[in-house]
Amino acid sequence: MEKEIISWIYEAAEIIKSGLGDALKVDQKNGRTDLVTNVDKEVQDFIVEKINAFDPEALILGEENGQDQTPIDKGRVFVIDPIDGTLNFVMQRENFCIMIAVYEEGKGQLGFIYDVMRDELFWGGPKVGKVFFNQEEISAPENQSLREGLIGMNAALYRKNSYHAQEIGQASMGIRVLGCAGLDFIAIIKGTQIGYVSMLSPWDYAAGTIMMEQLGMSFTGKNQKPLSFQGREFFIGATQAAMAEIQAFDEDNR
Amino acid sequence: MEKEIISWIYEAAEIIKSGLGDALKVDQKNGRTDLVTNVDKEVQDFIVEKINAFDPEALILGEENGQDQTPIDKGRVFVIDPIDGTLNFVMQRENFCIMIAVYEEGKGQLGFIYDVMRDELFWGGPKVGKVFFNQEEISAPENQSLREGLIGMNAALYRKNSYHAQEIGQASMGIRVLGCAGLDFIAIIKGTQIGYVSMLSPWDYAAGTIMMEQLGMSFTGKNQKPLSFQGREFFIGATQAAMAEIQAFDEDNR
Repeated sequence: MEKEIISWIYEAAEIIKSGLGDALKVDQKNGRTDLVTNVDKEVQDFIVEKINAFDPEALILGEENGQDQTPIDKGRVFVIDPIDGTLNFVMQRENFCIMIAVYEEGKGQLGFIYDVMRDELFWGGPKVGKVFFNQEEISAPENQSLREGLIGMNAALYRKNSYHAQEIGQASMGIRVLGCAGLDFIAIIKGTQIGYVSMLSPWDYAAGTIMMEQLGMSFTGKNQKPLSFQGREFFIGATQAAMAEIQAFDEDNR
Repeated sequence: MEKEIISWIYEAAEIIKSGLGDALKVDQKNGRTDLVTNVDKEVQDFIVEKINAFDPEALILGEENGQDQTPIDKGRVFVIDPIDGTLNFVMQRENFCIMIAVYEEGKGQLGFIYDVMRDELFWGGPKVGKVFFNQEEISAPENQSLREGLIGMNAALYRKNSYHAQEIGQASMGIRVLGCAGLDFIAIIKGTQIGYVSMLSPWDYAAGTIMMEQLGMSFTGKNQKPLSFQGREFFIGATQAAMAEIQAFDEDNR
């Protein structure tokens, strides 16, 4: 299955790259900075077609085209984000990802994050027992503490100091705001960030958390509860050491 | 002169890349997140040697090795930052730049910013009358307003809402925190960010502002005064349209 998915991703990337030269049709979703383009929709349609041909029984949970309510706990479910970081895609024509995840009976089996313009594919999970950067297996990042690493941050959480975001940032080596969940997950998987604090939807965190789990790292939703896979919610992902420190902020303030 | 400087930069990049595999010797400067490595010092020494051989009369203003007080207003002055984004260099082994600028009698003539790991060189200024991305001339970015673009931000200014940093961010399409001034200047020059709000030293802003000026963009220090080239100071660089809006925040609140 992983070979097919990788081939769809590379084909989808070609659709995106060939769309970069043209005038994008950009629409707003929930407010002036939440954008969707004709290319997001076209790429989601392309991936959905490929999935339907590959496995007509499979369900799909995806950001665009009204497929955003599918539960993940029964059968095989593909979770797809055709362009993660649409604002970067529109404004920068780089720093965006294609993400696909596969769940079987509620268990994450495979995750794929492709940084299109840098041509960097990270993929893996329990189905293959490993995580790869392109064709090369990657080893689990060091279990670094908060003060040893950089941490990805959602700008609004940081501005409002929600969920101790500012204290978490201050305890780290520094924050980074990239505007693309996929790039934050890639940084965690590579070991160049020790964590990520954000507000995310299932298609934002599905692929990344499958790979993080495979590498022995931690993630959680609000109040240290499991992620709900229902709508946009608070998200923390980190090394185990940094996660323990982040959760201590929460407990100190109860 | 520009050919020589470009060749020094590519040679310096080889020194950096060959140092990436080795254990870095990392020291703190002003606090635990302000780092310097043996490679910063080695690269500055290398560039200084090249400058001395090329023009023994030239002065040098640079971050490392106690050369940080040279005034820029007399004779030819090279302003150098051997590794801009040292924290990224140490933590990520990517997302850092080499920067060199040349001033003659206080006038910026040439700026160079090299994103080492992406192999992207931006350079130009009055001396050549243009700005280049590698060998290709780049045209001035559109004069976009604040609400049309992303803006680079220093995390501490944003956290404290100093100089209206949060209002500026809210009025834009979104903030990005990259941890490397050179990458923010590259984004402005390419037109993928409309501006950058930060605290910077002369070697952080010299090369970038020379290229911004060549492309008809604006920059200023605190209270809309010119940059002092003396120590670390408040910095805004932006399109002319965004700069006018940013300065209006300041005036609205006097």
